[in-house]
This record gives sequence, structure tokens and C-alpha cells, in this order.
Amino acid sequence: MPKFGVILSGCGVYDGSEIHEAVFTLLSLDQLGAAYQCMAPDASLDTIDHLAGKPAGDKRNVLVESARIARGNVVDLATVKAADFDGFILPGGYGAAKNLCTFATHGPDCTINPQVARVLKEAHALGKPIGLICIAPALGAKLLADKQVKVTIGHDAGTAEAIKKTGATHQACGVNDIVVDEKNRVVSTPAYMEAKSIKEAYAGISKLVGRVVEMAGK
Amino acid sequence: MPKFGVILSGCGVYDGSEIHEAVFTLLSLDQLGAAYQCMAPDASLDTIDHLAGKPAGDKRNVLVESARIARGNVVDLATVKAADFDGFILPGGYGAAKNLCTFATHGPDCTINPQVARVLKEAHALGKPIGLICIAPALGAKLLADKQVKVTIGHDAGTAEAIKKTGATHQACGVNDIVVDEKNRVVSTPAYMEAKSIKEAYAGISKLVGRVVEMAGK
Repeated sequence: MPKFGVILSGCGVYDGSEIHEAVFTLLSLDQLGAAYQCMAPDASLDTIDHLAGKPAGDKRNVLVESARIARGNVVDLATVKAADFDGFILPGGYGAAKNLCTFATHGPDCTINPQVARVLKEAHALGKPIGLICIAPALGAKLLADKQVKVTIGHDAGTAEAIKKTGATHQACGVNDIVVDEKNRVVSTPAYMEAKSIKEAYAGISKLVGRVVEMAGK
Repeated sequence: MPKFGVILSGCGVYDGSEIHEAVFTLLSLDQLGAAYQCMAPDASLDTIDHLAGKPAGDKRNVLVESARIARGNVVDLATVKAADFDGFILPGGYGAAKNLCTFATHGPDCTINPQVARVLKEAHALGKPIGLICIAPALGAKLLADKQVKVTIGHDAGTAEAIKKTGATHQACGVNDIVVDEKNRVVSTPAYMEAKSIKEAYAGISKLVGRVVEMAGK
């Protein structure tokens, strides 16, 4: 049974992993007969009150909050070796752009969490497929800009422009579809960058997971 | 388009709504062409650290945390009138047994949050279907014991016994299946009371949602 790492960034669209996207990633993997391990960096995040849509004024821990989506079964990314997995998938949510890297605040000049960068660089070097959902492709673009990686975040012009400024290639894409960079073995889908409903997010993510699992078998 | 209320109890299996169950409820409703509104009581909860599996020692707000699953779109249950909806669904998680009622600590002698009880009593009186997932059937059993409601939480003997002590009827049920009380228009499924994997939880929940939506149309 192939096994995939799912890299989370907290629990909630505004300060962590987008919950629907993360859950659909896990469901799709399980439905395809693939195992998964949730993982996240041991780092702090600025809590957003999701009802008020404003900063709550306190901090939470990315790994501890990610455990909510994982039903407790999440490991510290610092303990992860890419060689132990068949591929990796990153759901979106602001956490992917604030906690895993600083794209939300620094755009193309962002930095990437060292453990996230290490695991994904190792995975890429080993030819393991990487799936990037929603805003997570911006992180992948920064990480693999020197490989001319091709990704999508949908149609948002400003975000696409920032991705191009990293040196990566952006390709527009509909919500139900995926963009595949065969050479770099990177698959991306817009999900809630475009989705108007939860079923639209599910459609693109299940397609992405299918392609990542298929790639891992080749 | 029929519209359903999804009653949440926080965000995370150990102190709120079980996240996968809540997300699958929303997905299934959307896929069936039904609209939904997430709702939760404005109440406090005892935070559980989901990584350590222990009390974190602080409190969070049920409505505010539920907003994470709802991407911000959640309303205070106190503002909800059952007549405005075609039915209601309660995902499980410890939140359903600790924040919406006190079944986790008081078993058959539990009390139910007044707003939860009011909305569900109104719904039942109006003949609106009610879907109960995982441990949430225990709440429904207590609420509608005088109606001899029939529910399932799967096969767990201790929980089934506690449900029977409320005066309700318990019927054993497999993870992929549902129990339907036609007279009371109550549908239940075990989900993570039985599920060994995320796809098993999805299977039962999508079946439950299908039946609740179908019932609402009759």
C-alpha cells in the first residue's frame, strides 16, 4: 500500500489548513487504497477568530492544532524523512501561506519553513510526486522556482503574478481541474481559490489526489 | 432548494464536532443540491490538546470554534427557528456529548443545551427530519425518549445501554448503514463510533444525508 505525507498548517482556513481541503485529501487517499500520515511543523501561529474574521490576539501551535484534523495522529515534520513516503500533499488555507511559508506577507520574496523546505526538497530529489492545493502552489513555486516548476492557483491575477515573480510558471485552471508538471512531478489544483461551493473543492482535490497516487506508482 | 441546519459543537473530535463527520455532512448536502447553514450554541468548552490527548487547561467558545469548519459562516443557535429549515443534522465528536448535552459525563441523566433542545423540539413537532451521527444519537435519545425514538450508535454495549436507560430504543447497526425511525423522522448512523477509516465514516454519513434529504421532500 503506497503511503503519503499530508502536510498540515493548523486547523481552519484563516490561520491554518483549510479544513474541507485537508479532509478531502485524506478521504481521497483512503478511497484509492493509499495510506496517509498527517504531519506539521512544531511552530506557532497567530490565531484568527473565524467568527469575527479578525485576529484573536493570541497564539496557538501549528502541530497541536493540526492534530484536530488528524484525530490526534499527526507527527512533527522534523522527524519526517521523504524517503519513507511515496509522495506528499499540501492542502491550502492561509496557514499554507502564513505558517508553512511567508507568501501571504512577502509574496515572491517569501521564506519557507526550514522543515517544510527540507522534506519537499528531499521528496523532489527522490522523484516523489508533490500535490499542491489552493494557495499551497505558491509555496511550491518558491521552493522549485529554479526547476521552472509549473503550478496553478486558478485565475487570480495578483497571486498568479506573484508566483511568476518567483521564477516559476503559472497556468490558469478551472476549479474542477488540475495542472500537471510531469517533469517535476508536481500536481496542483485551485480548490477554494476558485470554488464557490464545497462540492467544487472536492471535485478538484479528488482529481489531484488520483493523479498524485497514479504518479507515485510509476 | 431545500435547506438544512447543521448543528456544530466546536472543531475537533475530542472537544467539539468530529471534523471529518461535519465536513462529509456539508459535502453530501451540497452534492444532493441542498443548501445548508451551520449553527452552534454560544457556549464555552474545555479545550483538549488533540496532540497530547489531554485537557489544555483553557476554554474556547463553541460558536467561534465551529466557525472554523463553516469557513466563518455559522450562526448562533439562539437565533434559529426550526420552521425556516427543512431538517437538521448533528455530526458527532465529543462536543456533541459534552457541549450540546452532558451525556459524556451524566449518561442517561444528561441535560441538553436549552437552545439545542428548543430547536430540535420545534423541528420534531413540525415533522422535520433529524439526522444524528456518531454519538449525537445519544442526545436525540434523551430529547425524544418520551416518543420512544429509535436510534443507533453502532455496537458499543455500554453506550447502547445508556441510551436504553433514557427510555429510547437502540438498534445495532454497521458502519456503512443507517437506522431510520420513520415515525419520529429520525435517522442515525455510527460513523466514528464504528469506523476504522475515513472512507467508512464517509459511507455511512453520505447514506444518512441522502435519507434525511429524501425524507424532507415527503
